[in-house]
Amino acid sequence: MTVTLTTDFGLADGYVAAMKGAVLGYAPEARLVDVTHAVAPQDVMGAAFVLAQATPFLPDGAVHLVVVDPGVGTARRAIAARVQRACGGTFVYVGPDNGILSLLLADPGGGGTLVEAVVLDRPEAWRTGAPTATFHGRDVFGPVAGRIAAGARLGTVGSAIGALQPLHWPLPITDADGIDGMVLHVDRFGNCLTNIARAAVDETRHGRQMTCYAGSAIVHGLAATYGSVAGGEPAVLFGSGGFLEVAVNGGNAAELLSICRGTTVTLLFDDAAARRPRARAIHTPA
Amino acid sequence: MTVTLTTDFGLADGYVAAMKGAVLGYAPEARLVDVTHAVAPQDVMGAAFVLAQATPFLPDGAVHLVVVDPGVGTARRAIAARVQRACGGTFVYVGPDNGILSLLLADPGGGGTLVEAVVLDRPEAWRTGAPTATFHGRDVFGPVAGRIAAGARLGTVGSAIGALQPLHWPLPITDADGIDGMVLHVDRFGNCLTNIARAAVDETRHGRQMTCYAGSAIVHGLAATYGSVAGGEPAVLFGSGGFLEVAVNGGNAAELLSICRGTTVTLLFDDAAARRPRARAIHTPA
Amino acid sequence: MTVTLTTDFGLADGYVAAMKGAVLGYAPEARLVDVTHAVAPQDVMGAAFVLAQATPFLPDGAVHLVVVDPGVGTARRAIAARVQRACGGTFVYVGPDNGILSLLLADPGGGGTLVEAVVLDRPEAWRTGAPTATFHGRDVFGPVAGRIAAGARLGTVGSAIGALQPLHWPLPITDADGIDGMVLHVDRFGNCLTNIARAAVDETRHGRQMTCYAGSAIVHGLAATYGSVAGGEPAVLFGSGGFLEVAVNGGNAAELLSICRGTTVTLLFDDAAARRPRARAIHTPA
Repeated sequence: MTVTLTTDFGLADGYVAAMKGAVLGYAPEARLVDVTHAVAPQDVMGAAFVLAQATPFLPDGAVHLVVVDPGVGTARRAIAARVQRACGGTFVYVGPDNGILSLLLADPGGGGTLVEAVVLDRPEAWRTGAPTATFHGRDVFGPVAGRIAAGARLGTVGSAIGALQPLHWPLPITDADGIDGMVLHVDRFGNCLTNIARAAVDETRHGRQMTCYAGSAIVHGLAATYGSVAGGEPAVLFGSGGFLEVAVNGGNAAELLSICRGTTVTLLFDDAAARRPRARAIHTPA
Repeated sequence: MTVTLTTDFGLADGYVAAMKGAVLGYAPEARLVDVTHAVAPQDVMGAAFVLAQATPFLPDGAVHLVVVDPGVGTARRAIAARVQRACGGTFVYVGPDNGILSLLLADPGGGGTLVEAVVLDRPEAWRTGAPTATFHGRDVFGPVAGRIAAGARLGTVGSAIGALQPLHWPLPITDADGIDGMVLHVDRFGNCLTNIARAAVDETRHGRQMTCYAGSAIVHGLAATYGSVAGGEPAVLFGSGGFLEVAVNGGNAAELLSICRGTTVTLLFDDAAARRPRARAIHTPA
Repeated sequence: MTVTLTTDFGLADGYVAAMKGAVLGYAPEARLVDVTHAVAPQDVMGAAFVLAQATPFLPDGAVHLVVVDPGVGTARRAIAARVQRACGGTFVYVGPDNGILSLLLADPGGGGTLVEAVVLDRPEAWRTGAPTATFHGRDVFGPVAGRIAAGARLGTVGSAIGALQPLHWPLPITDADGIDGMVLHVDRFGNCLTNIARAAVDETRHGRQMTCYAGSAIVHGLAATYGSVAGGEPAVLFGSGGFLEVAVNGGNAAELLSICRGTTVTLLFDDAAARRPRARAIHTPA
């Protein structure tokens, strides 16, 4: 059984290994796969995004142990939740109830369906009935993830709950002129991943030409891949997750184009540009 | 059998993978768990601290392969040592004899007991009888850790020795006024972990109120968890390892409070503050 | 079966976990070993170097999945190649045909011999017959590596090809006065690894004394290990890979001596120094 780990612990302390030990204490045969431990401290949205990138490609039945937990030790709920994946199969999320699952349950997004959720209110399922107030990853979530990986049903580690805590997730706005979206994630290469799904573009496009405005870039048309444009040139394309992405062939788009998480990305149909003049249009080639 | 790895190799070179290959050559079924490879170059104290954070939570019988080895290729001894854990079970340390085990054997600290130690003087147990002078992790320690993980007794990889090399480890000083300790580790979140154990505080406290002085912070009382204080406020609490910790709710205490490894942390009983005026007391709210 | 992973994906995004999921989909029992994911973006030479450091020490029969792929989605070939190792056994490389294998096939270098290579032209061996244009690691290379790890012959995932894409790899130049080489890699410790093999030095040396010039350092003679010189002093030695290395005992040679990848490193026989005056000779102690 696969248990993945997603945290903001970093790799310099002993926290990740302690939590892995806590998992292995209950699931000695589990396969551990790190998703990332480099989520920015307490960045719940960042964790949600990275998890959504990886989850559909991990084995059916995996347990995703996620500990990005600004509220550790306070009244926030600890949960386990089974989710039906859009691509088939299910996974179990174990972690705080702070909205990390929201993107995996959104459509477009992960497109998952919540099947079952429990609040972790059974101290006998934890590593100790008196967990520390600061490290529930090791004392609560890790042991519960291990038990589930070893076959425990959700009902044995907690009591059923209904709705999960939502996270206010920015969605793109579509009108007759085009689509206004937002950069959700800048990856290691400087590629800027937005919340604009391929389906949303296809639905409104009807074959018309479009221009993308993002940071200092104005890009006409969509590219098939990074190498479809000349080296150093910006490209707008649908990335491997199916969302619009702003990149630079052989370069770092975020740095070169002044784009960061939160930057507005606008796709305008060319026949609408006259109706929606833009301040930055002064940069458009004459 | 679990083999953990703790080094200062970083993750950018091929060294960790080469050493893992050396372990797997003798223990093809071993489960490898990285503790960290981000120990600062040659930082023996840092390695000792991180190892002590994780070791109690890893499976009984694990082999901890630790290579932070400023003296590689010189006369420092290479050792393997079996340690009885305070929390039950044993582990085997394989690495240089340079004091990395000292915190795991200290009380307070790991509270472990040395059961058996050998100096690695059997070239037939190494990957090659003529190891390189610069990479004993791959050529000596990795193969020995693999053999032990696969079941070899310590006596087959080396000759018995008595005392290990000590490391001068700072201990807190307690007097009638309170406790003076030191920051031993700043973690990824900026939390500042000290050498002041919960037991030491409980023993001297007798229910009196206390104030903590650390860097630019003066904090009255102890908190239960980070979220027990308002966002952005400093909190002093016992961390998940049982030692006093200075944190900021939702922020980086080390940065915000000018604290680093080595910073003095003083707990003064409030009724003793008049007897021990402090230069920084001028910052105390009126 | 061992599958290693070497990429420039970094550890902050979900890409590595997605690719591991793609491998596990076809080889659920595979042992995954990360070589590194910190190759600089699109740094093919860096990937080749790190892979050559680790490959000889990993188990016989390992599959090395390498995705440093500036040309993803363009006409560059995707390949799988079986290589006979100089140290015995074979491995299979799966990745782009962009020269990453060149150092492993060079002598001095990995000294491997290409046994068999195929171009990955069988969509039925991929995760999907319509892979994304930007993530062949997940959609093509990962599944193929998984299939091979699970026992598939190379002929079932692609069609035989002959020569691979070469990479222009800098070689040292030897003449009667000595050897001019180059720094190929600076490791985490600041040690500067060159392309000058021990054999090349032994062949030309004939027992004569030699002096090494690199960055701001002029070092007489070769050291056995870092600790053979005083703390803070530069040392020139043969590293664990058998190549000449410039280091500083207890310090960062690259920083202290102004050396980086690409820096020329010259070994001059002392009786040749008069014939080859050097600008930097003005720094030589009188």
